[in-house]
Order: sequence, then C-alpha cells, then structure tokens
Amino acid sequence: MKLVTFTTGGDAEIGVVDGGMVTSLSRAAPRLAAGMIDLIARWSVVEGEVRRTAGSGPKLPLKDVRLLPPIPRPGKILAIGLNYADHILETGHEMPSAQVWFCKQPTAAHGPYDPIVLPKVSKQVDYEAELVAVMGKGGRHIPKDRASEVVFGYCAGNDVSARDWQMATSQWLLGKSFDTHAPFGPWITTADEVADPHVLGVRSFVNGEKRQDSNTRHFVFNVWDQIAHVSKVMTLEPGDIIYTGTPGGVGMGMKPPTYLNAGDRVRIEVDQLGHLEAVCQDEE
Amino acid sequence: MKLVTFTTGGDAEIGVVDGGMVTSLSRAAPRLAAGMIDLIARWSVVEGEVRRTAGSGPKLPLKDVRLLPPIPRPGKILAIGLNYADHILETGHEMPSAQVWFCKQPTAAHGPYDPIVLPKVSKQVDYEAELVAVMGKGGRHIPKDRASEVVFGYCAGNDVSARDWQMATSQWLLGKSFDTHAPFGPWITTADEVADPHVLGVRSFVNGEKRQDSNTRHFVFNVWDQIAHVSKVMTLEPGDIIYTGTPGGVGMGMKPPTYLNAGDRVRIEVDQLGHLEAVCQDEE
Repeated sequence: MKLVTFTTGGDAEIGVVDGGMVTSLSRAAPRLAAGMIDLIARWSVVEGEVRRTAGSGPKLPLKDVRLLPPIPRPGKILAIGLNYADHILETGHEMPSAQVWFCKQPTAAHGPYDPIVLPKVSKQVDYEAELVAVMGKGGRHIPKDRASEVVFGYCAGNDVSARDWQMATSQWLLGKSFDTHAPFGPWITTADEVADPHVLGVRSFVNGEKRQDSNTRHFVFNVWDQIAHVSKVMTLEPGDIIYTGTPGGVGMGMKPPTYLNAGDRVRIEVDQLGHLEAVCQDEE
Repeated sequence: MKLVTFTTGGDAEIGVVDGGMVTSLSRAAPRLAAGMIDLIARWSVVEGEVRRTAGSGPKLPLKDVRLLPPIPRPGKILAIGLNYADHILETGHEMPSAQVWFCKQPTAAHGPYDPIVLPKVSKQVDYEAELVAVMGKGGRHIPKDRASEVVFGYCAGNDVSARDWQMATSQWLLGKSFDTHAPFGPWITTADEVADPHVLGVRSFVNGEKRQDSNTRHFVFNVWDQIAHVSKVMTLEPGDIIYTGTPGGVGMGMKPPTYLNAGDRVRIEVDQLGHLEAVCQDEE
C-alpha cells in the first residue's frame, strides 16, 4: 500500500494512493486515525479497514492534490553518515569502524515536490539521494535479526545539506537542519511491498544530469544493522524516520565542487518507491 | 509563574505550582490547553485565565504528585557545546570561533526527580548542569536584540552524556540521546519572573559533593546569541528547548575521569529555577 499525507487547500489529510488516484482516509473514515503517525501506531488494528476504505472510498486524481511530507512532523529524523564506500572516498574520510549518526531537526521535513529553499546564509547547498526507512512499532534493543519487524515502510529522501554550515564546526547538525532540507516521500510504501530493501537502485539528477547512481546493496551498514545500533541508545517510535546514507556523486565531491543554484531541478529516485522532484529557490 | 506537567497516577496533567501546592489546569480548566506545548502556543490568549484558575482552583500538595518533564516530548532539544571557558579547557578543545550545536533526541526527555538510567552499553555516563531555555512563540531569523521576546521561560537541566558513545565517532548525537538522559525542570519558570538569565548560578553535586559551580555570566555565547544563531537555520517553535551549555567540573574532566555509578545521587541547581535530583540506576 502507498500512504500519503496531502492537502487540497485545507487541512492535511491522510490517504491511500493507487494508480494515479488517492482515496482520502480523513474523509472516508475520519475516526480511523488523527494523522499518519497515529495511523502507523494503530496499524495492526486498522489495516483491514484502511484496505477496505481504499478499495471502496471516493477517489481524487493524485495530480489534483498537493503531497505533503508523508509524516509532516516526525518525532525523530535520524541519519547515518558515510554509509557507501564511494561516498566515503569522495568526502576524504576513512572507512568508519563504528556507525556515524547525526540527525535533522523535525522542522526540516518537506514535501516531495515542494521547492527546496537555498538559505541566504549558505552558498553550498547540496543534495543526497537516500532510502528512508519509516519506523512502525519501533522499540528499544531491537536485535538485528528482528529489525525488519519494526519497519513500517520506505520512502525516497533527499538529505539536503548546507556544506558550509555542516563543516563550520565539528558537529553537522545545523548544516543538516535548515527548513525545507528534509524532503521525503512521495509516499510511504508499506514494507510488505518491498521484498528486500537492500537491492534498491538510488539515483539523483540535477537538471536531468545523473549525479548519483548506486544501489542499497552497497551499504556499509544495512538497515537492520542501523536499527539494531540506534535502538541500543534510544526508543524508536512509530513514524520516526531514518535516512540510510547517500552514495558517491554529491556536489561536494565534484571537481570543482558544484552546489545547487536557484532554478536547479533536483530529482531523487529509489527503485520501487517513486521519486522526489524539486526546484531550488533562493530564500526571500 | 511556575508551570508543571505531572501525574497522580493517571494521565499527564498540566498545572501551576505555588508555595508547595499545585493547581491542576487539566482538572480546573480542561479546555484551556491539551498539554504544555499547546498551553505555550496559546499563552498570549490564555495567560489571564491560567492566572485566575491558579488563584481560585483546588490545590494538591506538590509532594503528592510525580513531576514529569515540563514538556514531555519537546519538538526539539537543541544544545550548545563548549560554552564556558573552564569547560572548554577541561575537554582539551580550543575556544570555538563559531557556536557548536548538537542535540538530544526527544525520547530522552526525563522527569526532574526520576532515576537516570546507566545503559548496559556505556561505562562513562556523566552529568552536565545547565540552564535550559524554553521557546515561546519562536520563529526564524530572530535578531539578537529581540531574542528575549521569543523565550517562554527557563528550567534547570542535566545534559547527561555517555562519553564513550559521544566520542566513539565524530558526531556526539548518540552519546547525548540515551533514554532518560535529558532531565529538565522541575518546572518552567516563566520569563517574566527571571529578570536576567545571564546572572544565574549553575551548580551540580554528586552524593553531596559539589562538582560544578559557575554562573551564566560566564557564557561564551549568551542565550540571545544562541537563539539568533540557530534561528538563522531553522524555525523555532513553542516548547522547543535549548540546553545552553555546561561549565567546568564534569566527571570527564576530573583526574582521573570519574563517571556515574548506580546509587549515585546527582543534584543540579540553577538560581531562581529550582533543582533536579536523581539517583542513578543500572539498566535492567
């Protein structure tokens, strides 16, 4: 199933996408869930009714709605760095022996087709195509061999990064957390439809030029490793999301380094999950 | 006014503390706000009714309730590092030319008197006494000279840090984000009762032994500098909290380094704002 959060101009609604059409669960079955996080948290109870509603409810053309981030305000946006060998090489880092984790602030969450804002205070905004994992029931101390059970689904994501701010101090947080810099979506593809998250092509394009083209089979630490590791530290909760790392080919690694400019069109694709596409615009 | 989130065994309630007694706003005026973040967001509209309710409503002895984190799940827990000269010295860092920001994950939020859990996977859990600023209306691009207008109030905080995890990679996030490692409170003292947040004594004690004893006048970057800087990057929202840095005297800086053990009693005091006190216990 493909789940979206969207608007037709009023309040955010949750819905199910199928064949270019969306069924609004918020209209057809308003008591089902208050929003996407609530829907995910209650999934084991409501899944049957969601499927029935999606089959029988009234439909809107997908092209007539505006897709919001599938989870408009995740509780956590975690991200692993340096997780593809070719990206590690281009950044000049050594292969990490331990998983390197950082995060983006929840206010950075951004719709799949909405403009990426280039901040007045940064000259080095860059893209990072990534597979995003969405937590389902979550938990703490999740063993690697059971990690797949706590994943609700997957999205494409762009870990937009202001390199000048990311590298200004030892800690990457601010450079990763500008408003609009965590686009993901276009929908959550539920995990039952993704037979193996570790065979997915991940690509990015700027103005049609292919910049990144890899596959999640090249992860240094796979999704199960990642969930096992972070859940040693913290409780993962429904709707928390994990950016799982980006392959080589980011603008920072080009010779000379090449950053995003106003008007640039950035497309992120992940096999089976759809694509994001955004035009960059200068902050007003 | 001193605002708390508490429980008497059932659902979380919000209330006002005065002279050892608490008035439950959730019971006396349930439609006022759904919780502390909602109360803060609506403050300009509801403040008068909160004051009237606190004056006239039924009261419970503070000792009979359990205080929860004043904001049980903040949208953001931001934190500045290396913000007192003596702490910079003890960590071996150089004086930063730019503000160094990291964060704690919202699931780390913890009550002011609840036990701090020493994780199975860490041998180096440390305390950090801090002033915590609570955002009111928040916003983006807040000039330094107007930053005081967006602060709702202040708390004491303990930026509990698992040093082995903090230093295992370049990024501090995981070492700062263990469950129970963001105690703050005991209440939010509204900003109108804090004439100047930059003259507050900040102290910590372990088993009665004074470990940190400084004053926010020794900040490298004051609260207004901090808000101006992070709001260049991200929108600050009602109920977001900022840990404003810790002075010298943490366990990592002792010779030899001395970390927390099960049974240790950690007390954090900030002038005018009250104290936190927690016993450490091993993770089960």
